[in-house]
Amino acid sequence: MSVPGAPDAAELMRRCDVLAAQSAMSGGIERVYLSPQHATVNAIVSEWMTEAGMSVRQDEAGSLVGRYEGAVPGAPALLLGSHLDTVPDAGRYDGVLGVMLAIAVVARLSARGERLPIALEVLAFGDEEGTRFGTTLLGSRAAAGSWQPEWAQLRDRDGVSLAQAAQAFGLDPARIGEAAHDPERVVGYLEAHIEQGPILEEAGLPLAVVSSIAGARRFQISVLGEAGHAGGTPFERRRDALAGASAIVLAAEEIAKRSGTIATVGRMSVQPGAVNVIPGRADFSLDLRAETDAARDAAWQQIEAAIEAICGQRRLSARIEQVHAAPAVTASPLLRDAVAEGIRSAIGVEGPVLYSKAGHDAMAMDALTGWAMLFIRCAGGVSHHPDESVTAEDVAAALDAFEAAVLAAARQSGARPAEPAHAEAAGPAVQEATP
Amino acid sequence: MSVPGAPDAAELMRRCDVLAAQSAMSGGIERVYLSPQHATVNAIVSEWMTEAGMSVRQDEAGSLVGRYEGAVPGAPALLLGSHLDTVPDAGRYDGVLGVMLAIAVVARLSARGERLPIALEVLAFGDEEGTRFGTTLLGSRAAAGSWQPEWAQLRDRDGVSLAQAAQAFGLDPARIGEAAHDPERVVGYLEAHIEQGPILEEAGLPLAVVSSIAGARRFQISVLGEAGHAGGTPFERRRDALAGASAIVLAAEEIAKRSGTIATVGRMSVQPGAVNVIPGRADFSLDLRAETDAARDAAWQQIEAAIEAICGQRRLSARIEQVHAAPAVTASPLLRDAVAEGIRSAIGVEGPVLYSKAGHDAMAMDALTGWAMLFIRCAGGVSHHPDESVTAEDVAAALDAFEAAVLAAARQSGARPAEPAHAEAAGPAVQEATP
Repeated sequence: MSVPGAPDAAELMRRCDVLAAQSAMSGGIERVYLSPQHATVNAIVSEWMTEAGMSVRQDEAGSLVGRYEGAVPGAPALLLGSHLDTVPDAGRYDGVLGVMLAIAVVARLSARGERLPIALEVLAFGDEEGTRFGTTLLGSRAAAGSWQPEWAQLRDRDGVSLAQAAQAFGLDPARIGEAAHDPERVVGYLEAHIEQGPILEEAGLPLAVVSSIAGARRFQISVLGEAGHAGGTPFERRRDALAGASAIVLAAEEIAKRSGTIATVGRMSVQPGAVNVIPGRADFSLDLRAETDAARDAAWQQIEAAIEAICGQRRLSARIEQVHAAPAVTASPLLRDAVAEGIRSAIGVEGPVLYSKAGHDAMAMDALTGWAMLFIRCAGGVSHHPDESVTAEDVAAALDAFEAAVLAAARQSGARPAEPAHAEAAGPAVQEATP
Repeated sequence: MSVPGAPDAAELMRRCDVLAAQSAMSGGIERVYLSPQHATVNAIVSEWMTEAGMSVRQDEAGSLVGRYEGAVPGAPALLLGSHLDTVPDAGRYDGVLGVMLAIAVVARLSARGERLPIALEVLAFGDEEGTRFGTTLLGSRAAAGSWQPEWAQLRDRDGVSLAQAAQAFGLDPARIGEAAHDPERVVGYLEAHIEQGPILEEAGLPLAVVSSIAGARRFQISVLGEAGHAGGTPFERRRDALAGASAIVLAAEEIAKRSGTIATVGRMSVQPGAVNVIPGRADFSLDLRAETDAARDAAWQQIEAAIEAICGQRRLSARIEQVHAAPAVTASPLLRDAVAEGIRSAIGVEGPVLYSKAGHDAMAMDALTGWAMLFIRCAGGVSHHPDESVTAEDVAAALDAFEAAVLAAARQSGARPAEPAHAEAAGPAVQEATP
């Protein structure tokens, strides 16, 4: 099904290519929060939102908000969104495709001159990945009212503070918290996103409903040994921090495999870092996820014990800092039904129900309102990699399904009051979430 | 024994402290080839050489050469030397103490008005560690006539070429090779250096004679896998480059321990290097040493097989580049006897005979002339680390021993023609050496 005057799947994929060209790295995609590339994609996407019939503003956190009024101006809004930022050397669909689909749904309504009982707002978040400042979901957490003023002091690798970067971007760092939406004016949040996993491909289906999002715990671990000359120091005198860190990497992998959880060491650096010097220090990250918080925490206990044993054997010490902890969040049953209905209407069969091991903006939006997500099949489950890929057929199905889900959610919303946020996840001071 | 008018052990240690303050890093010592700190220490050391009665020049490679004429001006010279550059976050005695001892020996002769049948030349090399340009012993290899013109194109981490750095330092990069000493005008090379190992401490003795220097092979290894989202990619689909690299680090350690060789991974970096992305690539260094070249090469064969097996199991690939290979070199028997005699005269007992697992400027000088080395006890065998430490008593013993060794070598030289370089190690095009 295509709608004359609104972008079709091929056009959405072309738009993903256009945004992929806005990159800080040559030969690959890297687009981080409050960067010049962020400003450029905001300008381009703002244009597409305007074409789709929305009034557009940039919020206090640098996210775009495109509003399409309902039948009665000023009505509460169903929020549709995802993010425009990327990891280093990223693919072109993670986040971006969800924003493109949301704009296209509005463009279809607009092309038909159709107004809903509620407004629609498309949110294009400026930070989900946390690549630049190490803290994730900054855009969606600001929108959800979970912004913490101390985040203005976060610094990037070059020592630039978030406050400085916000100022250079034309924002007032003291006012970022004002990006918060009023929960009374919001009826829910829907997000479409590539699966970033292999299950849909294995099932031979293009679309799925998301039931919940696993929360990660992340640790920054420093193994401390003693630097020494590579030639002069025999093994029995060595306290090689990298050898200890390597044993921990393998132990974490083994424990995660055995317990059905997911452990990833994505960063590793070594000091002093000379070819002929035994490493005196190794610093690395550990990201730990599981279907339930209990399974994740049990795996962490085993990994922590392994770290202690390895450091004991090797006369090393370890400093462990938990830098992030997010509880799992659960989709709103009503909005989840709307997504399921959208999938049925688009492809004629039920979509499978998946839990997401990856974090998403919906995780932050959980503090503001009920949410649901639509997953789209991607080739080989590959994401956070240039080979990330989707087919035009799947994007076409996703567009139809997302539109139908929005219409179903609008019908629900017209018949009931705004759904409150999950009480147990609404505490902004402890709210964390995990891409 | 101290000589009025010449620096004593306490003064030598103070001088090491003075040079330690000339550093590019705050709170630690880092002094690399052709840096502003290199220029500053050359100025300071030049002053001390002049005070000791030497005529001083900076050679075409940026090393200092202080000459103390013998009884007949223009006589062939016994060279005494070591280096003034450091690794990052270094100790204060590695290299520097050897230069200070050489200057002090000349100062003693000068204070006594004593002239030998030969001249003495103190060489303070500007590069031994190879920290800046990745290639080691640049100062001593230039002095030994092994300079390769293509080294001018080596680049540091900031992309500055050696030629550019030489120019900024006031040198003509096209003339660096002219730093070569004429082998006909040289009678040998003596170097004093901290042991950088624990054997003297364990033996309860301050000084040792060096019999040979092990040659290292160094490899740059890249493990290639596939980046992917930390949440979405299950273990059976992962091709985690860092997990593979970690297994290789542990395998190399295990093989080296078992075979009595030394393997060190001193550098490790990971790409793309984000907390929530599976590493697609890991790059690391491997430094491999053994008492004999045959033992070292046998260990490498085993490590290479382990790399292949690990990459096969984990669906990874590896790129291996040998970036350095040095044959072991052997001290000149006559000069080694002179050092042994020096130790006996200073401490009244024989010094143990050690082979050096660490490389030294003597390795490069082997291409020019016969050599011998004096090792000085250091605390805990620690080197390439801020905790590097020696006692004033040991420095006093080393000064007496080094002086006596120089006098013994001078007596030998007066009675025999210049000793030729080792024929088997003299091919400059393939000559490599290993700190």
